[in-house]
Order: sequence, then structure tokens, then C-alpha cells
Amino acid sequence: MDLFNIKDPSFLKSMTTPELEALSKEIRTFLIENLSKTGGHIGPNLGVVELTIALHKCFDSPKDKLLWDVGHQSYVHKILTGRAKDFETLRQYKGLSGFPKRDESDHDVWETGHSSTSLSAAMGMAIARDLKKEKSYIIPIIGDGALTGGMALEALNHIGAEKKNMIVILNDNEMSIAPNVGALHNVLGRLRTAGKYQWVKDELEYVLKKIPAVGGRLASTAERIKDSLKYLVVSGIFFEELGFTYLGPIDGHSYHDLFENIQYAKKTEGPVLLHVITKKGKGYQPAETDKVGTWHGTGPYKIETGDFVKPTAIGPAWSKLVSETVRNLARDDKRIVAITPAMPVGSKLEDFAREFPDRMYDVGIAEQHAATLAAGLATQNMKPFLAIYSTFLQRAYDQLVHDICRQNLNVFIGVDRAGLVGADGETHQGVFDVAFLRNLPNMVLMMPKDENEGQHMVNTALKYNDGPIAMRFPRGNGIGVALEKELKTIPIGSWEVLREGTDACILTFGTTIQMALDAADILADQGISVKVVNARFIKPLDHDMLMEILPQERPILTIEEAVLQGGFGSAVLEFAHEHDFHNVKITRMGIPDRFIEHGSVSKLLEEIGLTAEQAVRHLTNMIPQKQKRA
Amino acid sequence: MDLFNIKDPSFLKSMTTPELEALSKEIRTFLIENLSKTGGHIGPNLGVVELTIALHKCFDSPKDKLLWDVGHQSYVHKILTGRAKDFETLRQYKGLSGFPKRDESDHDVWETGHSSTSLSAAMGMAIARDLKKEKSYIIPIIGDGALTGGMALEALNHIGAEKKNMIVILNDNEMSIAPNVGALHNVLGRLRTAGKYQWVKDELEYVLKKIPAVGGRLASTAERIKDSLKYLVVSGIFFEELGFTYLGPIDGHSYHDLFENIQYAKKTEGPVLLHVITKKGKGYQPAETDKVGTWHGTGPYKIETGDFVKPTAIGPAWSKLVSETVRNLARDDKRIVAITPAMPVGSKLEDFAREFPDRMYDVGIAEQHAATLAAGLATQNMKPFLAIYSTFLQRAYDQLVHDICRQNLNVFIGVDRAGLVGADGETHQGVFDVAFLRNLPNMVLMMPKDENEGQHMVNTALKYNDGPIAMRFPRGNGIGVALEKELKTIPIGSWEVLREGTDACILTFGTTIQMALDAADILADQGISVKVVNARFIKPLDHDMLMEILPQERPILTIEEAVLQGGFGSAVLEFAHEHDFHNVKITRMGIPDRFIEHGSVSKLLEEIGLTAEQAVRHLTNMIPQKQKRA
Repeated sequence: MDLFNIKDPSFLKSMTTPELEALSKEIRTFLIENLSKTGGHIGPNLGVVELTIALHKCFDSPKDKLLWDVGHQSYVHKILTGRAKDFETLRQYKGLSGFPKRDESDHDVWETGHSSTSLSAAMGMAIARDLKKEKSYIIPIIGDGALTGGMALEALNHIGAEKKNMIVILNDNEMSIAPNVGALHNVLGRLRTAGKYQWVKDELEYVLKKIPAVGGRLASTAERIKDSLKYLVVSGIFFEELGFTYLGPIDGHSYHDLFENIQYAKKTEGPVLLHVITKKGKGYQPAETDKVGTWHGTGPYKIETGDFVKPTAIGPAWSKLVSETVRNLARDDKRIVAITPAMPVGSKLEDFAREFPDRMYDVGIAEQHAATLAAGLATQNMKPFLAIYSTFLQRAYDQLVHDICRQNLNVFIGVDRAGLVGADGETHQGVFDVAFLRNLPNMVLMMPKDENEGQHMVNTALKYNDGPIAMRFPRGNGIGVALEKELKTIPIGSWEVLREGTDACILTFGTTIQMALDAADILADQGISVKVVNARFIKPLDHDMLMEILPQERPILTIEEAVLQGGFGSAVLEFAHEHDFHNVKITRMGIPDRFIEHGSVSKLLEEIGLTAEQAVRHLTNMIPQKQKRA
Repeated sequence: MDLFNIKDPSFLKSMTTPELEALSKEIRTFLIENLSKTGGHIGPNLGVVELTIALHKCFDSPKDKLLWDVGHQSYVHKILTGRAKDFETLRQYKGLSGFPKRDESDHDVWETGHSSTSLSAAMGMAIARDLKKEKSYIIPIIGDGALTGGMALEALNHIGAEKKNMIVILNDNEMSIAPNVGALHNVLGRLRTAGKYQWVKDELEYVLKKIPAVGGRLASTAERIKDSLKYLVVSGIFFEELGFTYLGPIDGHSYHDLFENIQYAKKTEGPVLLHVITKKGKGYQPAETDKVGTWHGTGPYKIETGDFVKPTAIGPAWSKLVSETVRNLARDDKRIVAITPAMPVGSKLEDFAREFPDRMYDVGIAEQHAATLAAGLATQNMKPFLAIYSTFLQRAYDQLVHDICRQNLNVFIGVDRAGLVGADGETHQGVFDVAFLRNLPNMVLMMPKDENEGQHMVNTALKYNDGPIAMRFPRGNGIGVALEKELKTIPIGSWEVLREGTDACILTFGTTIQMALDAADILADQGISVKVVNARFIKPLDHDMLMEILPQERPILTIEEAVLQGGFGSAVLEFAHEHDFHNVKITRMGIPDRFIEHGSVSKLLEEIGLTAEQAVRHLTNMIPQKQKRA
């Protein structure tokens, strides 16, 4: 069938299993072809083709509510709800989002991006449904990786206790982003290998009937055993303990098993957990055989070979630069321990893990634990390196406040993917960290201008012994400068003048430095001389340099790839007014007060006016006319 | 013995059980007497007298590390580590903290205040110990309530998987702050009633030996059963599934049981969970019979009667005012649902729960889930009221960003205990919320000047349909103004001029308004006329009023009981510079860039210079001399 003709999933109702199997094949081909051009989350989506079709056949979306946890596995759902034609714009500016979006379709009832939120949201929807006395099914679909996130466990706990009707689909693909870690994964592992729950339960009942009665003592135990039947055997117990009816594990690529179990789940009162085993990347050889997560989310690739179409990068990947510098330092400093919440590949920590297997901890999707684990290590005079994406660091805000900063512990936080991240869009933009880290006492926050300064900053951070220190760095690659062999330390709170100038001053850091230099170039051609400062320490500010710049009363422009509210520019305003420089014109450029959608970073920067041209416009307006004309 | 003479816990080593029992009694008497004068967390501490003594007898602190989760149950530990004499200053300015503090004693190895952090920290310490090849025991003591917090579950998962040596004490007192909720509590409940684990295990082995062999089919099942023995019966399984050796439940007031099990735990390889049943308030009748949590933490009381020495309050308790207004509105608006993370008493939601039992959800210590549960409700056109303390809202920062603000959902967040909270000290000060809420797109943030405006704001929030709205309100009571019968709505973003003035202007909100009026009074006596504005909307600012005030170029003083970095004052600076008012003198008063310790709020305000006198000093400096003399 022509996938472009699909308007909504109702056509599935009348389809036979062989027809559905043909459809599955078509969808897989469609995904493999389209994503080879656009990139996207190929592995997760190939894994849920049958599951998604089965759910849309057995339920009535959007009356029945499908909540896609994390959401990067919602492509098949998008196809079945009339969005196949938009896939050529996937994750591009103004194009189809890679995640569920309520604006895109009524079938997208819950927006995701970060993991582990679907169960809490589903519980809210279930409470609302029951209060309104409506009838509908609520079906969160959550991966085994996402289940290790604390908030998912909080939600399981609450759902189990309240006994609301809800069908939780546990999409167990044996691999979240990286191979899963944690005991919960072990439980699931036992489950997977142990055969079907119902079978063992029957078996056990048969056995128990054979037990001869040998007096009260035994009877009570036997009774207890019988009573405990449901806790018994393999591991449905884990979820049954929490108040769920456990079904599974079933083959998530068998329509027969899916239909049978979904129908059974629909008839079951109270919360049900349906454990579905799927294979990430199913139907596309390179993705299916991927062991480490390379095919989780990718850029464009060649279908035949599975080779990635590499973007032309000049400098080294930032994550790699940081992790390698940490690894080099770890050879001499045995106190260095690396921690990642489920991102060993994204954070390029594989080599570190190989060289220092007992000094690298992947704690799974568990950002809160990751941060306080680092704090615990730091109390023992270790030097933890917490590798974490800016957007996921949001999950550990209280741990930053309460455990790390309040106790002033020596934790080095590598804030990866800081600034706009592009295709992943609004759930993943790393734009709040400057504002939320800057207001924490004891925190040092810095961002390097290039990869060479980046390696010196990593060294600075790991030599620093006065409390927490964070270095933000962008997604993608460095600009291609030479890396000095000898690592230096950079004095805390020291800025660097990149270009002298007398008419105005730009204070900026990280990715926006080039923008500032470009603006200064353009203005130089107009006879205007602009000083450009690498304000590499966002906190503390360079007190001395500011006390030199501010008395000159020349206009100051701050530029940051971070939210304006409470950001670096505000820090400069605060400093100026605190030191009684009330007369200085200060203008701030940065991310405006709204969520920034997906698209290429350059498009997005243009859209929000974070460009050299805009900087020129601001400076031109700020510089007094007579001076400009002189 | 004289508790004042205790230097460290080593004296316990030689004591007999009868001597320890006598000591327990002395400590209880000491606590009951001292806390009757100072107030404090009486219930939790009376519950852990034997447990704390047993731990200090069986382990060698501080080489062995005791981590007190939440930490309000560390009083006995403080007595045994030489701090009995400081109890007369408990929770007072410069006095003994109510929580573990590393500055206070080497025996306080981990600082707490917020719950559920001890397991992550303990894991960090265990990793450090093993990397350094040291020998020591690591013993986090965590309550059953704290165990429902997501990060504790994340940590259990990690600890179980890594199999590090650690002895987790589960202090199960059947009540965290309020009666526990959630499925995990049900598991513990079954455990408590089911007798001893070891006994049942023996029993079952006996039964299994009696099973006759009936062929391969049975044999394999029997084997499976035997293999699954450790998962079986009652509910040690829950923790054993996660990789722990489960011991208990044992009587936490029996030295015999405590010693026996602690010794066994010490000999066990890998992580052990020792399940100890204690009774909150044990040994003091009013606290022991408390069912709702009144005796969790208290002010001073009369020992004989258990009557509380009520502080003389003028207005209604803020929490009560807010919850009652919500309750009144909930009668007409069936969409209103209240949510609290374990604080139904603190947030005064008992009456709401009685009147609307199916519209009130206490989700336990699970702030992340609470926030996203609210988001889920809001997607279904419900009006969730999330009642949460400012300091605990930090735990839900990502849920605010990613789930509530990004989807622009109609969630009303009642930010309780905003500003300085006093005796609970630095872990509990509600001073970051202005900075971290203000940088979120779509968020409305407000704070009322008094309880009458407070009730109108609650009404405003619950009538508001354009996205998330938060109202912060302080700990304690209102100032005693009359409450208007008819509820009004306050235009979003509208400020209110409380006093006209021509020489300068104070912009402030909430608790610091009186300070501003006092300062204006003092200056009026000197012939200086100060305008005072109730800037009740922190976001959005009152654009029109600012555009009226700023062109006058008179000095502006902002005052807030919140951190200065990125706070309200910074918002005013941002606005002024964004609108090209670069010449206005703006000075900001607020909480400085450090953690604020415990003590009475008035003492703390004085210490940080957040006083009317300081405001006068600022204004005097800012106002041009000639104008002042005019």
C-alpha cells in the first residue's frame, strides 16, 4: 500500500495478519530508505514496527492514549497517523519532529524527549479519565533502559498502589542506548531466559498438589507458598510485587502473541505490565547486529554497506577531546573516576572504560544517582568526572544544589551538548545550564573558545581542589586548531582579550566567539574598533578585567548561546550595577524566552538573531554617532 | 552516665546490654527534655536510640561510615559523638544543626537534609574504598519513606548490580512524615506481617525435600524452585531481586536482635539490606501514639501534657490559607486535583483530602513523579495544584522544564516555604526558586504581599488557562489582614503601587514588602520620598509600570528574599537595559552567593543585611546629594 495515503490508523482494523506482515515490511523499507537520507533513530524504530501496528490495531487512538516514552521510537506511529509524507523533512527546520509533538497530530498525546516520564503522565491521564467517568485505555510504552530512571520507578510505585487501569508496555530490547546496566536489567535478563511466566506458574501448581500434608507446620507453609504463588518463579514477581499484573515475556515481532496478550491485558482490571521483547534494528542487518548503540541514532548512511555519510569535521569531536584528556590525566592521577548516565558512547568514554575498567561507572539512565555518586566519591578525596549532557543535567539540579555545591565537593562536571543541539530540538537544547549553574554558590562554570583551550580547561578542572567546577562544551566538533602537547592550567576567573578595540566591547564565550570576531571584522571595515573578550569563565567573572573595561564607559555587548534570563549577560549587568557603573550601555544577545524547535544549528541561530550581523546592528546602535563618524 | 562527658563512641565497646539499655533510657530522657525547650525532630530520634547505639557499638566510626539519610534522625548519633552539651542551641543561630554537618564532627561523613541521597553517596564511598584498597564498612541508614524517592531506587539498582560491600539499614518505622503511600510500602507491609525471612526459608526447604520425584518435568521445576528459593516467600525477594542479601525484619529496639544481625551483615559479602522495624516516638507517649506526623518535627512542648507551646501567630498559616482557598474553589471546579509529595500535613491538605478523597494524591517522597503527574492531568484539561516546598521543587526541575513548561500545561504550583525557612537551615532554605523558575519559558511566577492577596492569587492561578503558574509563599503565618469574602483575579503581570514617592523607588514582593515600607518611613522622616511597589509578578514583569518608572531616571532598589544571581533584581536590570534605560541607578538586595545556615529568620536576615536599615543605607547612597537636601 502507499504509506502516503494513510490518514489515520483505522485502516488497520480490517487487515489480516499476512497483510499486516506485508505492511511491516513496507514500513521497514520506508524507514531504512528515508532515514538513510535524513538520519534519525533507526534502531529503535525498526524494533517497534509490529508492536506499533498491533497497538494501533487493538486500540482506538487518540481516544485510547499511546504515550511513547523518550519518543524517538514514534516514527512508525507517525507513519500510521498520516505523516509518512513528512519524513523527507525529518528533524529538519520546520520539518517533522523526531519526537511526539501535540501540535503535529491529535495522536501525539504526550510529548517526550527525555526518558522515564511516560508512566507519571499516564497516571495523570488515568486519574483524569476516572474522575470524568470516561472509558479509555491508557498505554505508556517504555523501554527497559528508561525504566531505571528514578521517576519511572516512583511512578510504578504509585500506579501499583492506586490500582488504576493502565496497560504499561515494557519494550525490552536488551539495550537502551548502551548496553543496560543495573540490577533491574538483571531481573529482566532472568525473565528473558526463563520462558513464559504462565507456564511456570502452572507447573508449580502441579508440583504443590503433590506435596503430602505433614501437619500444621507444613500446611501453613504450603498455604504461604500458594499464597505467594504470584510472587514466585522467575521474575514477574518484581512487577507483581509493585501491584501490577505481569504478562509476558512475549515476542514483540509476532502478531499472534501481541494480539493475544494485548486482548488479555484489555480485559484485566488494574495496572498491567506487558513485557514485550523486541530487537532493535530488526530488518536491517547493520542495525540488527549493532552491539554498542552505533545505530541508535545516526546521520545519513549508505543502505547497502551501512557506512555512515560522515559530515566533514575539522577538529576532533568535543566529547572525544574531553574524554581523552581525562583519560590521559587519569594515568597519573589515580583519583580520577568517570561517571556517565547511560551515555558511554555519546560521551566517548569507551576508551576510558577499556583502560580503567574499575574507574568508569555507567549507572544507566539515572542522572540524580550519577551526580550524588560523584559527590560521594569526592568526599573520599577522589576526583569524579561526571560526563553529562546539558539537557540531562537538568535532572540532577537538586543533587547539584544540595549534595555537590552545598558540601563544596570537588566534582568536575563535563557539560556536554551545551547550547543548541539542532535536530533533536526543543527537548534537548542545552540552553538552561548557564542560568541554573550560575546561581549555585561555590560553582565554577567555564566554556573554552576552542579545543586547545578545552584540553587546558579539563586539566584545570581536574587540578582544581576548591569545590565543584563545570565545563560546558558544544555538540559536534572543534574548529581545527592545533593541540598543544603540554597541558596548562588556566587561572580561575581569568578572561582573555582576543582583540583590542576602543569603541565598544564584546564579552562572549565558547561557540559565539567566532560570531563576535566576525562582527568586529565587519565593523573594522566601517572604521569602528571593537574589543573582543573570551569570557571563558562565566562564574566567577573576571573581576579585574571588568574593573578595567567598565570605567571606560564604552558600550558592552554580551553574546551567549544560552537563555538570556539570568544568564551570563545578566551576570555582567549585575556586576556593573553592583560596582556602581550605572552609566554603561550593556546589551545582551542570547536565546530568547521560548523553547527553540529542531533544525540545523545555523538555521536556528539565524531565526533567533544570534548572528554576527545582529551583533553588528546592536553595536552600531549602541555606539554614539559622533564617535562612529570620527 | 553524664552524656556531656561523652567524647566519642568508643566507650560503648565495653558496655553490657543492660548498661546499654540504661543508656538508651537516659538518652530518651535527655532528648525529651531538651527538645521540649528547643523543638526539633523528636519522633524520628526517639525511634532510633537502640539502632544508633548498636551501630556505634558494632562499627568504628568515622573509619566506618554512617550516612544518615534525610539526617533529622541523627541526634542520638550527635550525642554519642560528643555533642550532647550543644543541644541547648539546637537549630538555633550558630548552634547545633538539626542535620549532620561535616564541620561539626568527623563522624558526620555525609550531609543531608533532603531525602534519598545516602545510598548514592554510600556507593561513591564504597567505590573509593575499593579503589584505594582500604577496609571499612559503609552503612547508609535510610527510612522506608525515603526509599520511594527515585534516586534511592536508582542507587539500589546500581548497588545491587555492582555487588559492592555495603550494609544498608532500612529503618522501617511505618511512617515517613505522613503515613507512607505507594506499592513499595505495601511490600514492606507484607514483610512486616510475615514473620522472619530465615524461618520461612528453612521451612520451605523442608517442604521441598518432601516432594517426590515424578519425572523430568517435575525435576526441572523443582530445580527451578530450589534455584528460585532466594526469590521466594514473603518479600525479601524485592531486595534480593535487586542483588542484595536481605536480612530481617528485626526488632529495632532489641539489642540482641540488632547485634546478631549486624554481626551477620558484617560477615556477608556484597550488599546487605538489614530491615529494622522501629517505632517513631518510642518512649514518649504523645509521640509514640501519633498517627499523622504531628510529632515528626515540632516546636517546644510541655513534657507532661504533650501540648505544644504555640508561637503567637497573627494571621493564618500560609499553607492553610492556600490549601483552604484551593478547597473552596474545588467545590465549583471539579477539575481541581491536589498533589503532594509526602507533605499532606505540612501543606495542610488534610481537609482537602477529607472532602475530596479521590482528588487528592499523596505520591510519597517522589517530587519528579508529582510534577509530571500534574502535567499528565493537565493534558486532560484538569487543573492540578502541585503543593510543594520551594526546596523540594528543586528535585523536579527537569520535569518543570521538559514536561510542564515546554508543553505549556496549566499546572498551578504552590511553592511553599519560599525564602528563608529558619531552623532547618541551609538544606531547606527556599531561595533558588525565583532564579530557576524565572528562566523557564511560559512560566508565570508571583508572590503575594499578604494573605488576602494570597487568596486572590490562588484564585487567579486556578482561573488561569494559558500555561503553568507558580505562587511562592513563605513559611509561617500571614500578617493578620482581613480576608475579603469575594475572591478576585489579579491581572497577570500587574504590579501595585503601595506608596507614591518622587526621589527613589523600591521594587519588591512578598515578605520583604514590610521592610521596604519601613525603609520608606525612615527616609520620609529625613524628607526623602520613596515610592514602594508591590512587584507581585516576578514573571512577567509589569511592563507598563516599568516603562513609567524607568524614564524618570530615579534610583531603583530591588529587594527579594531569594538569591541575587539571576533573581528578580536581575530581571529588572535586564528589562532596563533591554529598553535602553542605561542611565538608571539600580541596586539589588537579596540573598548573597553562599548557602545560608540555620537560625531564626530575623537573625539570618540581619546577618545577610536584608533589613530596612540596609535599604535606607542603599537609598541614601543612591539618591543624588542635592536632591536629598532639597
